[in-house]
Amino acid sequence: MGEIRYPLSINQATTREQWSLPEAIEGYARQDVRGIAIWRDKLAECGVEKARKRLADHGMTVTGLCRGGMFPAADAAGRQAAIDDNRRAIEEAVGVGASCLVLVCGGLPEGSKDLAGAREMVQDGIAAILPEARAAGIPLAIEALHPMYAADRNCINTIGQANDLCDTLGEGVGIAVDVYHLWWDPDLEGEIGRAGRAPGTRLLAFHICDWLVPTKDLLLDRGMMGDGVIDIPAIRGWMERAGYEGSAEVEIFSTRWWAADPDDVVAACIARHRTVC
Amino acid sequence: MGEIRYPLSINQATTREQWSLPEAIEGYARQDVRGIAIWRDKLAECGVEKARKRLADHGMTVTGLCRGGMFPAADAAGRQAAIDDNRRAIEEAVGVGASCLVLVCGGLPEGSKDLAGAREMVQDGIAAILPEARAAGIPLAIEALHPMYAADRNCINTIGQANDLCDTLGEGVGIAVDVYHLWWDPDLEGEIGRAGRAPGTRLLAFHICDWLVPTKDLLLDRGMMGDGVIDIPAIRGWMERAGYEGSAEVEIFSTRWWAADPDDVVAACIARHRTVC
Repeated sequence: MGEIRYPLSINQATTREQWSLPEAIEGYARQDVRGIAIWRDKLAECGVEKARKRLADHGMTVTGLCRGGMFPAADAAGRQAAIDDNRRAIEEAVGVGASCLVLVCGGLPEGSKDLAGAREMVQDGIAAILPEARAAGIPLAIEALHPMYAADRNCINTIGQANDLCDTLGEGVGIAVDVYHLWWDPDLEGEIGRAGRAPGTRLLAFHICDWLVPTKDLLLDRGMMGDGVIDIPAIRGWMERAGYEGSAEVEIFSTRWWAADPDDVVAACIARHRTVC
Repeated sequence: MGEIRYPLSINQATTREQWSLPEAIEGYARQDVRGIAIWRDKLAECGVEKARKRLADHGMTVTGLCRGGMFPAADAAGRQAAIDDNRRAIEEAVGVGASCLVLVCGGLPEGSKDLAGAREMVQDGIAAILPEARAAGIPLAIEALHPMYAADRNCINTIGQANDLCDTLGEGVGIAVDVYHLWWDPDLEGEIGRAGRAPGTRLLAFHICDWLVPTKDLLLDRGMMGDGVIDIPAIRGWMERAGYEGSAEVEIFSTRWWAADPDDVVAACIARHRTVC
């Protein structure tokens, strides 16, 4: 443990309120951060062709496209619309050379209390897009979200569930491990190990930030690494031992950091990555 | 499923801002709710002797005393102080005839990121008070809290962890199942069943309220049953099949309900208990 320092990537959600995609690419590269995760709304503003050129000009690795998923819906038309949208996301991931498409799988359909049913819709949705993902060479990264998002964002709430889905669905599906969502899980070390032992490459991404005490908002109060209580080096050690060889991607949704000078945010990411991750 | 309607109890946290303990006893009994869970700060204001008399006068069952726990601390003196306080809580539980002492086990010690260490401190703390609890005939009800409270309130975040602790610690330790904290857990049905099959009486309490969408505050935005997305009848059915024979205890921390007329709150608890639980 502690031998590997994963290359730094910044998820552009971290500077979402300050920078467009071209600005983020340039701003990250200016401080020699050569990894970025891209959001589809920002990509749509910029256009895939222009984004691809800017990424190449700055030697950027795209550690993920955010996001596919959101599969559960109250009716078949809604579920089909989600599947169609995920197929477009796969094409966009190819367009920017993303190493994976991150899936935030979706919560309960409007008016539903059937959590098990929503979880089945997630499995069915991923299965529906998997042929296209495999053909395109885009791994699908299931991101288990914190249980506080089970109702409205993602009914996949533990890495254990994500591993089960991977076992069921087979090649082409993996996992994005986000410390914010998973740090509390008593099975986290074991399930990261299980992912590492699975056939193929299941550990597709490693997202870092911190859990603040107190956390004042369910959505927009994530902390910079080192400002909270997550033992990030311990979790990184579990990722290392499981054979993960990608980047450490900073993803911070925070009204506080969104109000800061984005160059300072990037500098903070770099400094904390060196010292507390 | 649906054959049993558990007797209604109200946790006095539900009317915490409006009523003292004597007022709550009288207010609940006035609408023929004969179960109450008592908080220690309210009990301290009232005094144990007076509380016991008022409870007897109104024929109230005390479905729990809130709360023991909070075992982890940064040093041995802090951990001993917690154990001493829990021993006093056991005496108070005897004093009011509570059917269990609810344990909110505690989070990370100040400055610590060692979640596994905090969980060991919880186990050690419960083990330390268990002889007194057994001698007093007061079952200890481990209440797993939602993972969003792992850092600052309770590092026991799944019923699976609670079952593991019960297996380790043996007779005299059980579980309080709170739908707010556990509804998202894919293992909930299985772990309730596991608790039901364990020797003795492990299922000690059943707490109900609802998860609102959106949830606007991590602490004080719980919903009245029926206003959110939790399938309470399904979970009640799992409790029935596991052999639970206690009350359904309404526990709502909510600035909205605390601003309401407490008689209306009690009436809402009764109505919702009849229709959506």
